Amino acid sequence: MKITQDGAAIAAIATPIGVGGINVVRISGDGAFEIVDKIFIGRSRMDGAPSHTAHFGRIVDRSGNYLDEVVVVIFRRPSSYTCEDVAEISCHGGYLVTQKILQRVVEAGARLAEPGEFTKRAFLNGRLDLSQAEAVGDLIHSQSEAAYRSSVRQLSGELSRKIKSISGELLNLASLLELELDFSEENVEFASRRSLKERLENAIDAMDELLASYSVGRVYKEGVRVTIAGKPNAGKSSLLNALLREDRSIVSKIPGTTRDTISETVSINGVLFRLTDTAGLREAMDEIEMDGVERARRAAEDSDIVLLVIDCSGSDYNGTEPLYEELAAICGQHGAKLLKVWNKIDLYQGGAPRDMENVFFVSALRGDGIDLLRNGLFRVVINENWREESVVVTNSRHRDAIARAQKSLTLALESMGSGKSSEFVALDLRAGLDALGEITGEVTTDDMLKNIFSKFCIGK
Amino acid sequence: MKITQDGAAIAAIATPIGVGGINVVRISGDGAFEIVDKIFIGRSRMDGAPSHTAHFGRIVDRSGNYLDEVVVVIFRRPSSYTCEDVAEISCHGGYLVTQKILQRVVEAGARLAEPGEFTKRAFLNGRLDLSQAEAVGDLIHSQSEAAYRSSVRQLSGELSRKIKSISGELLNLASLLELELDFSEENVEFASRRSLKERLENAIDAMDELLASYSVGRVYKEGVRVTIAGKPNAGKSSLLNALLREDRSIVSKIPGTTRDTISETVSINGVLFRLTDTAGLREAMDEIEMDGVERARRAAEDSDIVLLVIDCSGSDYNGTEPLYEELAAICGQHGAKLLKVWNKIDLYQGGAPRDMENVFFVSALRGDGIDLLRNGLFRVVINENWREESVVVTNSRHRDAIARAQKSLTLALESMGSGKSSEFVALDLRAGLDALGEITGEVTTDDMLKNIFSKFCIGK
Repeated sequence: MKITQDGAAIAAIATPIGVGGINVVRISGDGAFEIVDKIFIGRSRMDGAPSHTAHFGRIVDRSGNYLDEVVVVIFRRPSSYTCEDVAEISCHGGYLVTQKILQRVVEAGARLAEPGEFTKRAFLNGRLDLSQAEAVGDLIHSQSEAAYRSSVRQLSGELSRKIKSISGELLNLASLLELELDFSEENVEFASRRSLKERLENAIDAMDELLASYSVGRVYKEGVRVTIAGKPNAGKSSLLNALLREDRSIVSKIPGTTRDTISETVSINGVLFRLTDTAGLREAMDEIEMDGVERARRAAEDSDIVLLVIDCSGSDYNGTEPLYEELAAICGQHGAKLLKVWNKIDLYQGGAPRDMENVFFVSALRGDGIDLLRNGLFRVVINENWREESVVVTNSRHRDAIARAQKSLTLALESMGSGKSSEFVALDLRAGLDALGEITGEVTTDDMLKNIFSKFCIGK
Repeated sequence: MKITQDGAAIAAIATPIGVGGINVVRISGDGAFEIVDKIFIGRSRMDGAPSHTAHFGRIVDRSGNYLDEVVVVIFRRPSSYTCEDVAEISCHGGYLVTQKILQRVVEAGARLAEPGEFTKRAFLNGRLDLSQAEAVGDLIHSQSEAAYRSSVRQLSGELSRKIKSISGELLNLASLLELELDFSEENVEFASRRSLKERLENAIDAMDELLASYSVGRVYKEGVRVTIAGKPNAGKSSLLNALLREDRSIVSKIPGTTRDTISETVSINGVLFRLTDTAGLREAMDEIEMDGVERARRAAEDSDIVLLVIDCSGSDYNGTEPLYEELAAICGQHGAKLLKVWNKIDLYQGGAPRDMENVFFVSALRGDGIDLLRNGLFRVVINENWREESVVVTNSRHRDAIARAQKSLTLALESMGSGKSSEFVALDLRAGLDALGEITGEVTTDDMLKNIFSKFCIGK
């Protein structure tokens, strides 16, 4: 179902709000060039200018006073971001100037664009499918290499191609079954039930793989929440600092990256980890052990990984840690992974630890073992067997649609198994197809689109 | 004196830092197109593409993976912002993507641009003179209609033309005098001393006018600091709110406009007023009158205008105000203007006030008289006789240069008066010309340029 739309000219400031060298006001839709011609004085008129050309001139107000020197770049339909006529006015940076030019554009006949409306039009006009349009939003907001890379891959149509290949197969199967129905009186079987079953199972397997990728996709997109727990003076803050110190990426310097007093971000192999030091949660200085457990408990409930930091330097250290059992229980309940970190290992006087699984040996102060720990953190969320080039689902909307599609296929398989009429099987297949169609946007509703594009920024 | 420069390619993110629909990486200088060709995959090569054309394609990393879909617009020298070869890469908004593209551009051979370096090159290559280049910076940072408009006028070359017309006249005079010196043995006088004197006096008058405009120019550019003083419960906060309520401009909504707890901005006829309510400075609730004076004193020292708010509703109000004398003294010392505001005028029971000068009658709660007060505030800083179309000096560097030039001309006039040799007079004229040349950048030093352009943002 395609949503019909008017192609009336819309306009918005397309660059981030703030002070910079250039700001861009983008206009898209019917009459975009006529609108520019009303307010722009240059060597030629935009209405007659060829596509993909840039024009220096001035924007003037109603009285002919000039507002700014600008460059207008025009893109004729359908060779533009929206597939409509698009004019981009680059003016001198600065909020006031840009705002004034936008006002002039609106005076001249455009209306203000809604959030994501340019991209929505690109989707409605078939330039991008829906998962690609969503990737544009993800790309803009990506805060880590992994988030960035997965959004670029999705934008390039990787997920769409995978979904379409599954859909294509389902469509074939459904058509075969429906053809049989047309010839039902003759009792023909166009495909052997065995082959049908096998092909259905393959489609279900492919979906399994996509669904499994979401655990990685979520990590790519949203990062990993890590809690650093442990007794007072075990070295929690030192460990946090050691992990931060080893972070050589530019990612943590992105403006807008959350940096409150208790949470820091580090990038490990491009994946964003949000580290919370439970010491930062302390409210009084006279911290007692029970409080530590309580704080750790609360933080662990919201974590993907809990690091239990243990000071193993004391001569009385016997390889055990009272907090461990309690944290293990909490992590078990919430599906978090618990890792032990023996800190101050350079001062350790005991023998070889009994349990070597999920234990890391570090000296936070000297930096020993930190690289191994970083690698360990990464390996918890990105399995050894994970193939870099696998298609990744990063969006819960996509995951839900795939899960629904898979459920329909499973029903279809059951119907076949229990000898139900092809009619039922075909219906289930169609339901599966519809669910997959929601990902690429072949099946959409106004609400769905509203929900997706309202999260975009204005000007995109 | 022109500064020589290499034209090596420089690059920077030209749009404001943040999340938006489009970000632009700008490259300028020798080899700009070759650099793009190394990292851009599109339908044609930039190196051979015509000027002012836009090209859709992808930026790829070293391994050929694609970083983003982009549009590259190219401008061939000298038809560009810098008069050099310029390529502008528009990518999807988002800090990380843009940063990556900039890194790629640097890998491919550009170096990171310094603050203001694009505009500096535009200046060095003669596209803008120095006062126009400075106007670009002012334009970007303008926070009010008046600041914006004066920077646009300066950018259009208005001040430069005025300065050049004065310089031209001085140059003529100097040449005449110097010619006389060449023929000194023949004792020729190419210009009557009387006519020379008149022309010099005219130039000095023109400079007077420019210097006088600075009081308006500063107000245009930086706004007006207004302190609202008065006894507790006189209605200071109500007055502040009433002034804010009447502000129909968009200006006060600019992100980044100072908005701390004690200062608010309003726009009156496009001029920015920063209103400080001294009540906001109070540290304890048990405010006593002496504290009020002390707070008002401190605020008044930093003000252009002090509003003394008086509650005239009481039956015992006798038209006097104990704070007035003290504030008047403070304002007198610091060159601030003191205005009286009789508040709660709807409840006033007395007779006609004796002193009507610099008094405004308002009801802050009802809004009565607020428009008159706004107009009064505006008239304090912008004289009735001020002509909108006058050339305005907004920059203290320009004011200082004009003042120095004027001083030299005055010396020249004195030398002529005292019958000194034409040689001395000509030297003074040349000194005046040099001072004026600093405004347009005909006379510059490395330090001067560094000082000017280092205040620009990167990417401009």
